[in-house]
Amino acid sequence: MFRNQYDSDVTLWSPQGRLFQVEYAMEAVNQGTVTVGLKSEDFAVLVGLHRPYTEMGVLQPKILSIDSHVGISLSGLSSDARQLASYLRTECTAFRHSYDTTYPVSKLVKTLGNKMQANTQRYDRRPYGVGLLLAGYDEVGSHIWQIMPSANVFNCKAMAIGSRAQSARTYLDRFKATFPFCSKDELICHGIQSIHQSHFTTDEMRVSIGVVGKEHPFKILTNEEVESYQRFCLFAVNPDSSQDTEIDENQSNQSI
Amino acid sequence: MFRNQYDSDVTLWSPQGRLFQVEYAMEAVNQGTVTVGLKSEDFAVLVGLHRPYTEMGVLQPKILSIDSHVGISLSGLSSDARQLASYLRTECTAFRHSYDTTYPVSKLVKTLGNKMQANTQRYDRRPYGVGLLLAGYDEVGSHIWQIMPSANVFNCKAMAIGSRAQSARTYLDRFKATFPFCSKDELICHGIQSIHQSHFTTDEMRVSIGVVGKEHPFKILTNEEVESYQRFCLFAVNPDSSQDTEIDENQSNQSI
Amino acid sequence: MFRNQYDSDVTLWSPQGRLFQVEYAMEAVNQGTVTVGLKSEDFAVLVGLHRPYTEMGVLQPKILSIDSHVGISLSGLSSDARQLASYLRTECTAFRHSYDTTYPVSKLVKTLGNKMQANTQRYDRRPYGVGLLLAGYDEVGSHIWQIMPSANVFNCKAMAIGSRAQSARTYLDRFKATFPFCSKDELICHGIQSIHQSHFTTDEMRVSIGVVGKEHPFKILTNEEVESYQRFCLFAVNPDSSQDTEIDENQSNQSI
Amino acid sequence: MFRNQYDSDVTLWSPQGRLFQVEYAMEAVNQGTVTVGLKSEDFAVLVGLHRPYTEMGVLQPKILSIDSHVGISLSGLSSDARQLASYLRTECTAFRHSYDTTYPVSKLVKTLGNKMQANTQRYDRRPYGVGLLLAGYDEVGSHIWQIMPSANVFNCKAMAIGSRAQSARTYLDRFKATFPFCSKDELICHGIQSIHQSHFTTDEMRVSIGVVGKEHPFKILTNEEVESYQRFCLFAVNPDSSQDTEIDENQSNQSI
Amino acid sequence: MFRNQYDSDVTLWSPQGRLFQVEYAMEAVNQGTVTVGLKSEDFAVLVGLHRPYTEMGVLQPKILSIDSHVGISLSGLSSDARQLASYLRTECTAFRHSYDTTYPVSKLVKTLGNKMQANTQRYDRRPYGVGLLLAGYDEVGSHIWQIMPSANVFNCKAMAIGSRAQSARTYLDRFKATFPFCSKDELICHGIQSIHQSHFTTDEMRVSIGVVGKEHPFKILTNEEVESYQRFCLFAVNPDSSQDTEIDENQSNQSI
Amino acid sequence: MFRNQYDSDVTLWSPQGRLFQVEYAMEAVNQGTVTVGLKSEDFAVLVGLHRPYTEMGVLQPKILSIDSHVGISLSGLSSDARQLASYLRTECTAFRHSYDTTYPVSKLVKTLGNKMQANTQRYDRRPYGVGLLLAGYDEVGSHIWQIMPSANVFNCKAMAIGSRAQSARTYLDRFKATFPFCSKDELICHGIQSIHQSHFTTDEMRVSIGVVGKEHPFKILTNEEVESYQRFCLFAVNPDSSQDTEIDENQSNQSI
Amino acid sequence: MFRNQYDSDVTLWSPQGRLFQVEYAMEAVNQGTVTVGLKSEDFAVLVGLHRPYTEMGVLQPKILSIDSHVGISLSGLSSDARQLASYLRTECTAFRHSYDTTYPVSKLVKTLGNKMQANTQRYDRRPYGVGLLLAGYDEVGSHIWQIMPSANVFNCKAMAIGSRAQSARTYLDRFKATFPFCSKDELICHGIQSIHQSHFTTDEMRVSIGVVGKEHPFKILTNEEVESYQRFCLFAVNPDSSQDTEIDENQSNQSI
Repeated sequence: MFRNQYDSDVTLWSPQGRLFQVEYAMEAVNQGTVTVGLKSEDFAVLVGLHRPYTEMGVLQPKILSIDSHVGISLSGLSSDARQLASYLRTECTAFRHSYDTTYPVSKLVKTLGNKMQANTQRYDRRPYGVGLLLAGYDEVGSHIWQIMPSANVFNCKAMAIGSRAQSARTYLDRFKATFPFCSKDELICHGIQSIHQSHFTTDEMRVSIGVVGKEHPFKILTNEEVESYQRFCLFAVNPDSSQDTEIDENQSNQSI
Repeated sequence: MFRNQYDSDVTLWSPQGRLFQVEYAMEAVNQGTVTVGLKSEDFAVLVGLHRPYTEMGVLQPKILSIDSHVGISLSGLSSDARQLASYLRTECTAFRHSYDTTYPVSKLVKTLGNKMQANTQRYDRRPYGVGLLLAGYDEVGSHIWQIMPSANVFNCKAMAIGSRAQSARTYLDRFKATFPFCSKDELICHGIQSIHQSHFTTDEMRVSIGVVGKEHPFKILTNEEVESYQRFCLFAVNPDSSQDTEIDENQSNQSI
Repeated sequence: MFRNQYDSDVTLWSPQGRLFQVEYAMEAVNQGTVTVGLKSEDFAVLVGLHRPYTEMGVLQPKILSIDSHVGISLSGLSSDARQLASYLRTECTAFRHSYDTTYPVSKLVKTLGNKMQANTQRYDRRPYGVGLLLAGYDEVGSHIWQIMPSANVFNCKAMAIGSRAQSARTYLDRFKATFPFCSKDELICHGIQSIHQSHFTTDEMRVSIGVVGKEHPFKILTNEEVESYQRFCLFAVNPDSSQDTEIDENQSNQSI
Repeated sequence: MFRNQYDSDVTLWSPQGRLFQVEYAMEAVNQGTVTVGLKSEDFAVLVGLHRPYTEMGVLQPKILSIDSHVGISLSGLSSDARQLASYLRTECTAFRHSYDTTYPVSKLVKTLGNKMQANTQRYDRRPYGVGLLLAGYDEVGSHIWQIMPSANVFNCKAMAIGSRAQSARTYLDRFKATFPFCSKDELICHGIQSIHQSHFTTDEMRVSIGVVGKEHPFKILTNEEVESYQRFCLFAVNPDSSQDTEIDENQSNQSI
Repeated sequence: MFRNQYDSDVTLWSPQGRLFQVEYAMEAVNQGTVTVGLKSEDFAVLVGLHRPYTEMGVLQPKILSIDSHVGISLSGLSSDARQLASYLRTECTAFRHSYDTTYPVSKLVKTLGNKMQANTQRYDRRPYGVGLLLAGYDEVGSHIWQIMPSANVFNCKAMAIGSRAQSARTYLDRFKATFPFCSKDELICHGIQSIHQSHFTTDEMRVSIGVVGKEHPFKILTNEEVESYQRFCLFAVNPDSSQDTEIDENQSNQSI
Repeated sequence: MFRNQYDSDVTLWSPQGRLFQVEYAMEAVNQGTVTVGLKSEDFAVLVGLHRPYTEMGVLQPKILSIDSHVGISLSGLSSDARQLASYLRTECTAFRHSYDTTYPVSKLVKTLGNKMQANTQRYDRRPYGVGLLLAGYDEVGSHIWQIMPSANVFNCKAMAIGSRAQSARTYLDRFKATFPFCSKDELICHGIQSIHQSHFTTDEMRVSIGVVGKEHPFKILTNEEVESYQRFCLFAVNPDSSQDTEIDENQSNQSI
Repeated sequence: MFRNQYDSDVTLWSPQGRLFQVEYAMEAVNQGTVTVGLKSEDFAVLVGLHRPYTEMGVLQPKILSIDSHVGISLSGLSSDARQLASYLRTECTAFRHSYDTTYPVSKLVKTLGNKMQANTQRYDRRPYGVGLLLAGYDEVGSHIWQIMPSANVFNCKAMAIGSRAQSARTYLDRFKATFPFCSKDELICHGIQSIHQSHFTTDEMRVSIGVVGKEHPFKILTNEEVESYQRFCLFAVNPDSSQDTEIDENQSNQSI
């Protein structure tokens, strides 16, 4: 493999004005399993795919609770995500202590982004190797934010990151106009369906689901709830979704 | 690609007295979409082009509000810009707290420049990878400042930076004599028109617009306002601007 | 040996988004002797294999006591493990001092993970070169956690790490459905048996055993107790386990 | 280009006892446009040439005011100059605050030199990339100091630095015997004339002019004043100066 | 000599999960002269071989007293050993000051190990280049600990380190079953004998001897005492030991 | 040019026990113009040669006043010298403030030497690139000290450093027996004469002269005084010195 | 010269367990002129050889006074020695201030050794490039210590270090049995004689002599005293020493 001459340090610009080390860290996100986030007016939902069952069946948490109004799902290095979650929890606790209210979601995200930006500009650290989708609900309404190793943060209506996220994004893009009016259950079904699009194996699909919304503190569903949703959604939606899938596969022949 | 021997560190001079890492960081500005700033006697206007719609349609903010009398538009790494905006906001708040007045724009810009200069002289950081146009209004009047990764700051009447900014600058240069006497709406139209010059695709053009002026706190226009301006300006100005464009294209055959 | 171009520093991403230095540190775990952990509802058991007797017969401790409700077994660099154990003990003592109760196991593990994560992101340290299995018992019940140099922590029902751990994992996987209902003695026998699977030499096998559980503070068994268990378990289980082993070997022809 | 083996670090001596990085930083001065300083007994004058008009016509300040009795002109990196000017202003304010008088010019210059010297001796910084001419007036009289990236400071009667400064120095050298007795206007004319010598293009010449002297606080002339001086001086002096120029060109064939 | 590609830094893992710099530091121990430690129930004895007499006959101390209940012998860099001894003495004094009792030996050793571990994980230090045998006596009984540059510490019944320590270990291994019941004099004789095994030259053998035990503070024997022991032990044991030596030499043909 | 393999860092020893970076810094002294120092019982005199007149005729100070009883002349980097002079002045002021007396010269010199020694032993600095001759007068009498980049300090009767200092040293060596009994004027003449020996060009020689002595605070002579001495000394001494010079040239054929 | 691959850093172990940078620093000692130390029961004497007279005849001090009961002679970099002497003086003063008695010599030496050890283990410093002989007298009696760049310290009866120290050591070794009973004058004569052995040139030999002892504070002899001793000792001892020298030369043919 040819060694790029400007990728040895995060503080080194290439002549074209690129930071290769930051771009490589972005690749770590693509090695994680897919996770999606989507929101209606009153709810924000995260759905994350687990790796196929291996021996011993140990599960890394895919969705982490941050505060009563915020949760994240991750794709990439889970130890980096845990460290960032730890930071977010401390921030939320400190804010609640100081102001006696929940940390506004946009402000929380930007605080996180600034912390991550520092790691793209200092020679003795590395950029974080994880992408996050953050679901929150505050006075402004529901939120889905995408946070990347480049320290970029995006305010999204719906988003999918991770391995083969393209298929999920194609699904979300097709239905996103309807999301604002979806019920919580419909949002969850769309999330499950979109991940189903990017799940190319015949193995049973294991997902985690987190929900937050109006008068609904962030909650990670139990295995039983998840299974019940999976049965319900894939059965309910698949019939006409199977057509969608055909269409999608045609599309994917073109776009992937 | 041939490796320049003096570009491995921001603290390394080439024998010709150049700092290559700073020059490479300047290239990051050229990879952002174009943004323009222009001012009349009473108003300063920022207009920034968004990337063409991609799937999911997530927009990165192109214009950021700093204080009631200052806003910035950016071209380059948006996470670097967010961090600098954060710094500017803190400075403005601290100044207001200490002196009970707004931070004079020129002084604010130079404070920012000095912060950015440090990153061009220390080996363990990298120069910022973003160019900013800053619009402000204070006792002295309206301001447009250009701030570059080299830490150079320029006091401009009108300026365009980013990818294909040359076309926009050519437009601005042609009309700049008339700007001091323009109304707010005319300034905005000139801004939209100048960006239109550098927009070579047939895709619909999405822009953000920020305005500050006399008795007019800095405001980022809503999508509806922006669309209304776009309809109005491109219709109103295009007829005779289309001739200009022809002329411009001739010019661009020569000068670009 | 070909030198990978992205493995000189823990802060250096490869173009594929990997951190080679972290992956190499994981190899240090595979150079240690095997250790297993497994749990029933009321007990968590650690069993670790010692290196074959060498001259002078000095034994490095394989299992370390942390607090009355927590113990660890290790595979890899024992000096790194001792330093981490030291950290865990200090944390537990400080927690007990502040809150007058034992440190919840999950929280303790994540605190440890965050400490180890820092060493995967700073250029002037190296990732720890040791894998740990942590057995604990608190209000939530019994715990087996796996902690790796990558700073990943896994909540396991049963796990084996170290040299030839695959055979032990295969054994554990086969019986794990029965573990929740096992008595303490049965758990210990399963642990000894699973290590026996990965012990390919004819030398006598020396193991250490640690147990914690309901109303059973963490205790490392004496040599006499260990020998008595070894005699009992290998005699009791081997007859039908010998068949299992045959099956296992067939399996291992496929899966290893 | 051949890589010198001793130019990779400002702290690295070559076997001949040279510091190449400092010498390279000196080259940055030669890339700036020319600036001259000269003084009579009662006045010190700075004249600096601006880059030829480019599109948009943005001017970088060439002369900066420091205090009521001191100003500087620069050649090289303007962001470095701004940072140094910032330092000088802080020093002057602090001095005035402590002693209720203006900072003696020689002492101010040496304080600046010591600050710049540190950057030629520490490995994690780079030498400043700018040369300064400092004009001041204090109890001792008028001053022109030259301050270079090597941290050398020179007490001059007249000096020119920057691109093609040689021609300007030749002019100044010829007339310097008369400077002590010149009026303010004559000094300014000599300054404009000397820059005219090094201005080889047919473009109109844009200069900035700064003056300080006895009962004359440092002042940067307005554009109108500058233009009026340019008209007056080049008309008044050119006739006989044109002969000088011929002579000078002959000389330059020899000496340049 | 071929340069290993992963041995330039103590923080650099090889792809096989090894730390070469730590392994190289272990070699420094093998360059020291041999030293042995052994213990009965009530006594712990250290015997160390001095380098053959050179001109001027200067002796580096081979055994160092730490506290009334602890002493060490060393093999490797004596300046590193002196620094570690200094640390141990300070620890013992501080402990006595705080708790009014002697520092428990196991705890003291682990504190030392943790200090040494830090030097195997930080890039700006090197691992210590000395191996220690530590003899102590506390409430638990007598102790012999081996402490290595890798920061590993071993609780031993008897041990030998340094150049040609293999022969001494072979001797100790043969007799170690009898050590617990040995008198102090017998222990010393075994120590002298074991070193005699690894002393391949015809030069007279000079050793230092340190003893600690029940109601016997750590004491380094005087030259006279050492010589008297040497005469007594080598005379007393040699006759039948000479046979052992023959056997040993046969063994050494096999095992060394 | 062949790159020496041990000259990349001031902290790197060559196999022969040399520090090349320190030796290279010594070369910087040889690139300065010559300066001499000499003393009688009651006076110490410094004489330094300026570079030949160049265009604009700017003079760098060659002799610097430190305190009423101490002055220095320099050869090498003048910005380094200015920084050291600054340090010496601060030390003298602080000493006077604390003890109400002048800083003893020997102690002052050694304090300076220790400061300079640090720069020969730390990797992030470079050795100073200047040699100093220090003249002082205190209770002990008159002093001439030589201070070099290696941090060596020499107590001299007379000394010359800088480019072609050999000729000056030869002169001083010849007459040094007479110096203790010289008058101030005779010392100055010897100083001027010795520099004249090393001044091989036909250009007029410009020197600076500093004198300190009994009831004679350190004083740098005015240009008029210097010129008067030059006229007097070279006239007075040259007649018989011309013979000396012939002899000297013969000698120099041998010794230089 | 072939570049050793493990000598670039003092923190880098070679595969054989050596620290080359420390070994190279030891070479710096061999480049200094010879110095010897020897002691009787009541006196310790240092004698050091100066470099042959060069032009100007400047002498670097070879023997330094530390405290009333301690002095050192040096071989190697004198600026390093001066810095260490400075450290020793501060230690002695502080000790006297705290305990109102002189610093015990052995403890002082070990404190120095620990300071020097740090420079053999930190990457940003270099080992000291000087060897010291330290003479002292305290309650225990007279002392001669050798202190080397490796931070090793040796308690000696007599020792010689520096260039051609081997000859001096041979002399000292021959007579060392008689030293304990020598008078002060006899010790000095032996010191002068031993240096005479290693002085291979016909130049007159210039030495410095320092003496400390019972009721005899450390004193560096005056030039007159030294010359008188030189006349006396070389005359008195040479006759039979000339025979010794013949023998010695024969020996040196064998042993050097």
